[in-house]
Amino acid sequence: MNTHTPTPIQWHFAERAQRLQSSVIREILKITMRPEVISFAGGLPSPDTFPIERMQAAFDKVLSTNGRVALQYGPTDGYLPLREWVANSLSIDGVTISPEQVLMVSGSQQGLDLLGKVFIDEGSKVLVETPSYLGALQAFSVYGPEFVSLPTDDGGLLPEAVETLGVGARLLYALPNFQNPTGRTLSLERRVALVDICARLGLPLIEDDPYGALNYRATPLPTMLTMHPEGVIYMGSFSKTLTPGIRLGYVVAPQPLVRKLEQAKQASDLHTAQLTQMVVHEVIKDGFLDQHIPATRALYAARCDAMLAALAEFFPAGVTWTKPDGGMFIWVTLPQHIDSMQLLDAAIAQNVAFVPGAPFYANDPVRHALRLSFVTVTPDRIREGVEKLGKLIAARL
Amino acid sequence: MNTHTPTPIQWHFAERAQRLQSSVIREILKITMRPEVISFAGGLPSPDTFPIERMQAAFDKVLSTNGRVALQYGPTDGYLPLREWVANSLSIDGVTISPEQVLMVSGSQQGLDLLGKVFIDEGSKVLVETPSYLGALQAFSVYGPEFVSLPTDDGGLLPEAVETLGVGARLLYALPNFQNPTGRTLSLERRVALVDICARLGLPLIEDDPYGALNYRATPLPTMLTMHPEGVIYMGSFSKTLTPGIRLGYVVAPQPLVRKLEQAKQASDLHTAQLTQMVVHEVIKDGFLDQHIPATRALYAARCDAMLAALAEFFPAGVTWTKPDGGMFIWVTLPQHIDSMQLLDAAIAQNVAFVPGAPFYANDPVRHALRLSFVTVTPDRIREGVEKLGKLIAARL
Repeated sequence: MNTHTPTPIQWHFAERAQRLQSSVIREILKITMRPEVISFAGGLPSPDTFPIERMQAAFDKVLSTNGRVALQYGPTDGYLPLREWVANSLSIDGVTISPEQVLMVSGSQQGLDLLGKVFIDEGSKVLVETPSYLGALQAFSVYGPEFVSLPTDDGGLLPEAVETLGVGARLLYALPNFQNPTGRTLSLERRVALVDICARLGLPLIEDDPYGALNYRATPLPTMLTMHPEGVIYMGSFSKTLTPGIRLGYVVAPQPLVRKLEQAKQASDLHTAQLTQMVVHEVIKDGFLDQHIPATRALYAARCDAMLAALAEFFPAGVTWTKPDGGMFIWVTLPQHIDSMQLLDAAIAQNVAFVPGAPFYANDPVRHALRLSFVTVTPDRIREGVEKLGKLIAARL
Repeated sequence: MNTHTPTPIQWHFAERAQRLQSSVIREILKITMRPEVISFAGGLPSPDTFPIERMQAAFDKVLSTNGRVALQYGPTDGYLPLREWVANSLSIDGVTISPEQVLMVSGSQQGLDLLGKVFIDEGSKVLVETPSYLGALQAFSVYGPEFVSLPTDDGGLLPEAVETLGVGARLLYALPNFQNPTGRTLSLERRVALVDICARLGLPLIEDDPYGALNYRATPLPTMLTMHPEGVIYMGSFSKTLTPGIRLGYVVAPQPLVRKLEQAKQASDLHTAQLTQMVVHEVIKDGFLDQHIPATRALYAARCDAMLAALAEFFPAGVTWTKPDGGMFIWVTLPQHIDSMQLLDAAIAQNVAFVPGAPFYANDPVRHALRLSFVTVTPDRIREGVEKLGKLIAARL
């Protein structure tokens, strides 16, 4: 038998396997790994912000003082001192979050998968922003929901639309701070209204907040979690404030839901690496993020400004874009007849990359929009890349 | 709103959420963490085997030479040099496994979840051994399969039973080496027969092999993967040979299936920590496991022998047990009227713990069996614990 050529058998997959697709972003990223490409496509943080030496010292310390625990199987809900840190960091505005409301996960993408697993049956109604975060659409899709696209304007989603669209829905998924992909921020007034409507409907509201700490201009707005802890599922991550490669995030929710998510996590991967959690706790426990994040903010804010300036200089009339107060992304709307997927082909030929807008729509994809990330590119290269894009767009007008 | 007591809302969960339960083992482990308890309940490797200093040196090296890559997002399929290492390690007996057939996962529990996600629809027939690994039953259960329990004897599963039971099934899940929970090993003859029947039926055969390297007596048998690489899905792990706390395993399968599993992984958690994979590669690339595993084997073999000797000395007539050639577990069958769950209560009162057998059965639980793990307990304490158990059993005869 050992001499067979491995010609694969046609196996019978589950129906949900048909719904699995590779993310267009990760496909584009493969193309844009070449150093000559000016890539605005990534959702990657800048490696300039990674606290490498501090991580190294923490690995040394945790392994030398506590290696037998750090390298052993650990609890499914996560490392208690880190859960305590998360609970404390979110206990503001008079609200107390307990460590028992915190589940550590392997990056917040896993939180999305666990929420899909626990909440979504085939055909369940799930409300999402228009456009929404691609990774969430991908995670939820596996479970076969019916996505309902919530109307939005420059200020993000319109809460009043939830009054009718939210009836009978299982989940509402929102990214209120510097949204991926648009960079938009939901105003305080809209947060209050959204929380109120969801509470009245008994509709679980997912507040996905990976970028909240990356505010460049405005004073941070309160989380929806603090407005209504019994109805909001909050998701946080260390990917944008520390490093994404370690895969560490958290879900904060009312206890009965956390216990259910914990069971789902146990079946999915037992637990998130104990060593990673102990090291992150070691890195952040004495207030390191308070010193570290301002430097990240300053770096990204300068690049955001450079991109906004370049867009104003080089993009032709008829093109509009968002002016984010934080985060990593600017959303560009082209004249309706320009297809951003075709523009991408032309751009890649000139060594510039971005992500076309269509994949971010759960329904009715808009083909004349695109997402630009500014955080991994230097101001000079931002200017150079935006100038090239501007010319490509102008040639199509 | 900030003064609400968080009284949780009754949210509408997915049907599959009802099927999620906490593993009885992890519940028992919480009880048995007290140092005075002699615990045979764990499935944990002994921390005496963790190569802590070597891991520490590898973290130092990877972070200092390649920190910007190690801490960044990485590819979903895994770190290429490590996939190459895995492919090489499995390319034996004239079979070549390519790195493109390897998907790195966050512990092999995640491999089980991804296989469930890709293969199992509600009601799909999934064949498992009697008894089978609890974590697999848990991972698959989420997707609502109909489990079919394959008949077994002291030599493991009976391949001929698959001829009829396997018709129309989606998966067959087997643990051929030192099975969890029974410690049984499938003979070469049965492996050949099983592979042959699965190939004829076009039935995907999962070969879960976390313990294969821990052989104490016999010469290792060939993997079923090498017998039929186009029909076998092989799962391996670094949990038992290096350390479990880092959560690192792999799935090896024909390429079209690996690509589908890769999409499922992307939706589940994007990728497994790049840093972890680079560090493990650094640790093992120069043949470290060849020096390291023999010491683990020697430690565990001595403890296995100590337990077998104690069982022979202290367990009364009418009780039988398996004599494993490797791995971590011995399976004890009590006289039919003794309920191992009730025995556990009495044992815990005397500071001895084990896992009752019933949860390892997909159907028709056997209540007079139990699993003993010998790897984390010293020979003296093994003798002491087994003596206490023997008296408790004798008192019930």
